[in-house]
Amino acid sequence: MKLYNYWRSSTSYRTRIALNLKGLAYEYVPINLLKNEQDDPAFLKLNPSGGVPALVLDNGVALTQSLAIMDYLEQTHPTPPLLPRDPLARVRVLRIAYAVATDMHQFANLPVLNYVGEKLGDAAKNEWVQYWFPPNLAAIEAILNDGHTGRFCHGDAPSWADICLIPQLFTARRFNVDLTPYPGIARIEQAALAHPAFAAAHPEKQPDAPG
Amino acid sequence: MKLYNYWRSSTSYRTRIALNLKGLAYEYVPINLLKNEQDDPAFLKLNPSGGVPALVLDNGVALTQSLAIMDYLEQTHPTPPLLPRDPLARVRVLRIAYAVATDMHQFANLPVLNYVGEKLGDAAKNEWVQYWFPPNLAAIEAILNDGHTGRFCHGDAPSWADICLIPQLFTARRFNVDLTPYPGIARIEQAALAHPAFAAAHPEKQPDAPG
Repeated sequence: MKLYNYWRSSTSYRTRIALNLKGLAYEYVPINLLKNEQDDPAFLKLNPSGGVPALVLDNGVALTQSLAIMDYLEQTHPTPPLLPRDPLARVRVLRIAYAVATDMHQFANLPVLNYVGEKLGDAAKNEWVQYWFPPNLAAIEAILNDGHTGRFCHGDAPSWADICLIPQLFTARRFNVDLTPYPGIARIEQAALAHPAFAAAHPEKQPDAPG
Repeated sequence: MKLYNYWRSSTSYRTRIALNLKGLAYEYVPINLLKNEQDDPAFLKLNPSGGVPALVLDNGVALTQSLAIMDYLEQTHPTPPLLPRDPLARVRVLRIAYAVATDMHQFANLPVLNYVGEKLGDAAKNEWVQYWFPPNLAAIEAILNDGHTGRFCHGDAPSWADICLIPQLFTARRFNVDLTPYPGIARIEQAALAHPAFAAAHPEKQPDAPG
């Protein structure tokens, strides 16, 4: 498989973690978003939406949207499971995953930040991220305090919740979001970053990361 | 079951469609977002994130996040299926669903529009939505042209793709987004709005809709 992705993109980071947790090898193909390589005609054939990541299967089929790719991996490589079998446990994991993916992620997406910078000035970018991230982090911290959290967001094994949360924290730091009010999140981040699948997926370890 | 929701919220609309497609009855509890009823202490006990929808099960457990609720319904009431069994069909449906839920939805969310209005003026709200919706609608239209579309986004039966897309089109119209460049989407919208499960979930049919 080939993973077209970008070292700093949080959705790319999610996908790398999921592939690593499933023990699946892939070829790393860097797409430089700062050079708009996602809009190259050759790449647009793989993903008409012009975004990363895109996972190209051995049969040539290109999958896009990190959560759809994660679902595909879950369907086709069920072990180890990254979503619980129990419906209520599963809904708890998804609640955290979607709190990141649908409620936070877009705010720090490159085109959105470019728009904000253009309309309100470059200094407004940090302010924008610092305005939107904390209420969502607080909501996740509240879920983590419900008694079902272990070493990871749900029990002691990594799940979609951690796969979505950890990359978003990397983004939060980039924009100097104060993370001290979220000790539960901080504890999980520490555990995750020490896990080989997360460590190998870290942006700064990727071949296209600046030296 | 009790569905705490708001007539015009697109995530509430999604959840109503899913419940209707599964043939599940529910009590409608209106939460007026314009009166900040989502921040009432009683409601915050159900959803600490303070958002709609929240689905309270007969055993008192409160589920939040529309996509997590939809997944719970899929796990606990698998018939009729709203996600295909085949992994590649499933990834196609999810790609469309997530293109709406992760890439479009947030832009027209009330707090985001309030922020944009406060910083850039009320007139900027329509401009903001009209800037972000079209590239995402074009990406969905491109997927719909791949030969797997039927009466609905994937074949002839409704799926998560339609459940996410149709409410977002209602929002698009509110902000005068030009939908004429997307004939494939328009055809599916027409089919969906004629389907009883979608028709009964329409915002203007809800008890809290203005008369």
